[in-house]
Amino acid sequence: MSSEKLKSQMKTVVQTVKDTNPMAGSITNSVTINLVANTQIAVGGSAAMVYLPDEGEFLAKAGGAVYINMGTMMPVYEETLPLVVRTLKAEHKPWVLDPVAIGIGSLRTKLLQLFKDYKPDIIKGNASEIIALAGLWELEGGAGESQVRGVDSTNKVEEAQAAAVSLAKWTKGAVIVSGEVDLVTNGSVVASSRGGSHFLGKITGGGCALGGAAAIYLTSGSPFIAALTAVSAFNVAGKRAETTTDAPAGFQVEFLDQLYKATPDDIAQNQFDIEEV
Amino acid sequence: MSSEKLKSQMKTVVQTVKDTNPMAGSITNSVTINLVANTQIAVGGSAAMVYLPDEGEFLAKAGGAVYINMGTMMPVYEETLPLVVRTLKAEHKPWVLDPVAIGIGSLRTKLLQLFKDYKPDIIKGNASEIIALAGLWELEGGAGESQVRGVDSTNKVEEAQAAAVSLAKWTKGAVIVSGEVDLVTNGSVVASSRGGSHFLGKITGGGCALGGAAAIYLTSGSPFIAALTAVSAFNVAGKRAETTTDAPAGFQVEFLDQLYKATPDDIAQNQFDIEEV
Amino acid sequence: MSSEKLKSQMKTVVQTVKDTNPMAGSITNSVTINLVANTQIAVGGSAAMVYLPDEGEFLAKAGGAVYINMGTMMPVYEETLPLVVRTLKAEHKPWVLDPVAIGIGSLRTKLLQLFKDYKPDIIKGNASEIIALAGLWELEGGAGESQVRGVDSTNKVEEAQAAAVSLAKWTKGAVIVSGEVDLVTNGSVVASSRGGSHFLGKITGGGCALGGAAAIYLTSGSPFIAALTAVSAFNVAGKRAETTTDAPAGFQVEFLDQLYKATPDDIAQNQFDIEEV
Repeated sequence: MSSEKLKSQMKTVVQTVKDTNPMAGSITNSVTINLVANTQIAVGGSAAMVYLPDEGEFLAKAGGAVYINMGTMMPVYEETLPLVVRTLKAEHKPWVLDPVAIGIGSLRTKLLQLFKDYKPDIIKGNASEIIALAGLWELEGGAGESQVRGVDSTNKVEEAQAAAVSLAKWTKGAVIVSGEVDLVTNGSVVASSRGGSHFLGKITGGGCALGGAAAIYLTSGSPFIAALTAVSAFNVAGKRAETTTDAPAGFQVEFLDQLYKATPDDIAQNQFDIEEV
Repeated sequence: MSSEKLKSQMKTVVQTVKDTNPMAGSITNSVTINLVANTQIAVGGSAAMVYLPDEGEFLAKAGGAVYINMGTMMPVYEETLPLVVRTLKAEHKPWVLDPVAIGIGSLRTKLLQLFKDYKPDIIKGNASEIIALAGLWELEGGAGESQVRGVDSTNKVEEAQAAAVSLAKWTKGAVIVSGEVDLVTNGSVVASSRGGSHFLGKITGGGCALGGAAAIYLTSGSPFIAALTAVSAFNVAGKRAETTTDAPAGFQVEFLDQLYKATPDDIAQNQFDIEEV
Repeated sequence: MSSEKLKSQMKTVVQTVKDTNPMAGSITNSVTINLVANTQIAVGGSAAMVYLPDEGEFLAKAGGAVYINMGTMMPVYEETLPLVVRTLKAEHKPWVLDPVAIGIGSLRTKLLQLFKDYKPDIIKGNASEIIALAGLWELEGGAGESQVRGVDSTNKVEEAQAAAVSLAKWTKGAVIVSGEVDLVTNGSVVASSRGGSHFLGKITGGGCALGGAAAIYLTSGSPFIAALTAVSAFNVAGKRAETTTDAPAGFQVEFLDQLYKATPDDIAQNQFDIEEV
């Protein structure tokens, strides 16, 4: 897998999204739901968020992909989320799982266990979340005891590489471990993407927004290319936004605007290293 | 209905809202709920959002109008929304309906059918939503099959004029069709308002915010005047915000601030054409 | 209680939070949930929001404090909130109560009555909310009939002083009455803090954000010091943000950024007067 070929595929995905305005439905937390929607629109997609079972089913059929984020669970998710993932599989539609707050609460745990058999095409989490999910699914590199503290990571990205690789092998999709350096793996290669900004850790929802963007790109490319494209877009936009802002709230506004302005070339040219595993 | 008389009435509504800080309660989606509240405050009103039945009933009695937006339905809406619209009618309070995502899910459909008899004073939607609502209510100009794709319109504003007019005739209120040119009709005349910004389509919630602003103006004017005032305020603020920003997130901040700064004169002087139908 | 000693303690709290990134969980309304989280992060803390009973229980155990804001109640709160406050007491963890919209709806009233025995360590409200809560709890200075109109205050801050003092005597904690001048009392002294900006009343969530920040400081200081620190931080940041912005939306961005930039010294040096009561 040459870098040049990857870059060419990334450019195609970014351009296709800008040209076709694909819709990805989301079931996502109320804290950052607005940022997720605006991020999906900024990269060229269309956003639609729901809570109810038959509405989730509709979006799974009508959209090009679905983003499922496990923050702020509501009681109705007990019905909605199983129906959505069953529909996605029946319709052969891809989806992104963001296992926010894994380890907190019985409903989240039960649903995340169920999702093992519905193999999300992209899994995105911080290092602690990825390790905990591999643990919950009893895969190599996982840890039985979650180190997750609320929504923050207490592990470093590199500590999660083994878990990320085994998750990707299991799903035959891609896994993103977000952090200072972002890892993207399909189970056989690992790409390390640099850039971004420390301010992305000083706002709520940087990770959710990344998952939402990945779902948009996933409507138009393979899991690995979509994941690497989303990560690269965030790293370009974060780096640029940091040059003109000096605090998190101004940064967030500028970040979204840089995401909106980033061209296919800008995104594909953001530096990444690739190694086989 | 002369334009000069309309402008004079619009100025009065804007000034009354700024002077009296009227409250309009909302039941609205979680994606854009913050933007709706800040928009209602920016134009001079007071915002209050609830989900539970007796809280909705309270707001219907205590406020000057209510805004009902059908995005992100929750199970409790099955009880809340019928109680709210019954209370509004019993109290002779006006309300705004925003049929977001019409056609998706059985609860939304059931409630929208119910609303036919509770005649919202203002209906606001994009072209596809207005056509679909007229279809659901079996009125002229409607289409049996919704063309709604998630939350976006696939129809042009002018295609929805017949549906808008028949809805307004039915409710004896006003209908807004938002788009590149915004139509406002009371069933006998149609006003076309220009201005705004293409960036309003690049953020989530521009339409919801318009519905929320319309509810505030509806506390202090007739449905047609309130609707035309809200549309004109958005077109002034959008046009101005676009001159100093070049991307959606910065635009959103500037748009809200221009809405806050717009004077009664600014809003009344925004160009519109009027024709009888 | 000398001002110099208070300032020294405030500096310690601000610095401790910046150094240790403490987590405070929240159950808070969906209108301003994003602003609350970003505020908590801006002052140096970590935010986590939940709705479900066992998730609230987890946060009560895992975090350093909890923020409970009574806006946009959901049905599941009937189970979640009693469990959370019982857990907080069992774990000897402090919490902040924000009785938003007190007087509206039976569930809110029932829960607020229950909370009397679970003595929140900090109560934060506008003047009308504080008077209404003292009334509900049958304490001196309270009023039987709520003057609350939706979420806004119809009373002046000084009218709520007696209610604030009796609430603080009851809880043995601190009470914040937010307004043009902010009062903070522990039942024996009242601090009056100046600064801020009228724009904090032109955005939704200024009060919620203050409650969320107070919860973060409460992880690292006494209720009175945490409350005075949060109020002082907001007054510094508000005053500074107002000097470079001329409308609410731009102000909100700048406000969060000034909060992020405020040093322990900046916050401790913000003027306040203290008097015994």
